[in-house]
Amino acid sequence: MDIISTLNWRHAAKAMTGATIPQEKIDVILESIRLSASSMGLQPYKVIVISDKELLEKIEPIAMNQPQISKASHLIVFAAWERVTESHVDAFIKNMADVRNVEESSLAQMRAYGMNMVAQSPEDSFRWTARQTYIALGTALVAAASVQVDSTPMEGFYNDQLDELLGLKELGLKSVSILPLGYRDEEKDWLAPLKKVRTPKEELFVFDEELVG
Amino acid sequence: MDIISTLNWRHAAKAMTGATIPQEKIDVILESIRLSASSMGLQPYKVIVISDKELLEKIEPIAMNQPQISKASHLIVFAAWERVTESHVDAFIKNMADVRNVEESSLAQMRAYGMNMVAQSPEDSFRWTARQTYIALGTALVAAASVQVDSTPMEGFYNDQLDELLGLKELGLKSVSILPLGYRDEEKDWLAPLKKVRTPKEELFVFDEELVG
Repeated sequence: MDIISTLNWRHAAKAMTGATIPQEKIDVILESIRLSASSMGLQPYKVIVISDKELLEKIEPIAMNQPQISKASHLIVFAAWERVTESHVDAFIKNMADVRNVEESSLAQMRAYGMNMVAQSPEDSFRWTARQTYIALGTALVAAASVQVDSTPMEGFYNDQLDELLGLKELGLKSVSILPLGYRDEEKDWLAPLKKVRTPKEELFVFDEELVG
Repeated sequence: MDIISTLNWRHAAKAMTGATIPQEKIDVILESIRLSASSMGLQPYKVIVISDKELLEKIEPIAMNQPQISKASHLIVFAAWERVTESHVDAFIKNMADVRNVEESSLAQMRAYGMNMVAQSPEDSFRWTARQTYIALGTALVAAASVQVDSTPMEGFYNDQLDELLGLKELGLKSVSILPLGYRDEEKDWLAPLKKVRTPKEELFVFDEELVG
């Protein structure tokens, strides 16, 4: 399926069936998330993968009782680093040196870029780490649709309560978005039959000849 | 090409050739951006598309002289709404009513969700609109790679200077990221031959049985 068909197939399923996604499809979605772009390639987040039904049922009320959660096969939580630390940068450089089989000392400039992020205020640091999770989220949405798995990105939940439930603070993480993965329930998913609404081209895009600057 | 191969093919090209991308590939990339998910489907941004060589040359020094910019075929600027306004919500509801052929009055709840965003502080509003651009950016990266077009996402530029140059303030917009699109220059792109570095699976993912919460 080409990318346009994939994106047209996708919508935010409003009800799911509870059916389990085969492991090979989960593997494709998770590996796509892992391959996502991020600034400097730092990937300043962790990706929590929940399939335990009891835990999903505890999460549902934290997320405005959105019924997809307990009927998801898996729930992905995108949890950004609360802030970038020196040990994050150390691990990043060590991994890069390992993968490329070079000395860490040859990556001094890359390390310096990373340390610039460490020097940011906690607020600026989290603003930046949180933004990066959205690239991974965007990739996950395409990846899921590419293997005909439904997904419903959500920002509407009590972040603090979810962080508490999952023990994320202890991991230096803050939840940013959650993504139930599963299969649309054709009867209950009221959005499924409706036409996709997107901003018309002439509103969304501005071409250089139209710019006044 | 499946999504994993597409993502593995992709990297942030460090040098481009200056060759022009055929219009049908640009159309795929832009339509993919237009079909991107966003919270409520509001798409709170505009997408600036620049191919004028003179303008690209003016942008390059604003973006740390990254040489891909003047050698790009097209440059995409993701520019978030400075804040969500009532007229944005009005246009969103009108478009939804038009596309789905329903009365605007039937969309009162959706309008109320939109008005919640209008009520946010300017800082919170922009934090949210800026995040949404990253979903579109993530989609654009996959879409470009899916048609073998190279791209290099960049946050490292002087946002205020770019906004000034393009007249974005007058449009109620603030630039968030830029994305040169083009073709990698195999000789000058030092990143092209290097192995892709990503966080190992066991570091990036946390499965529910590992959670302490």
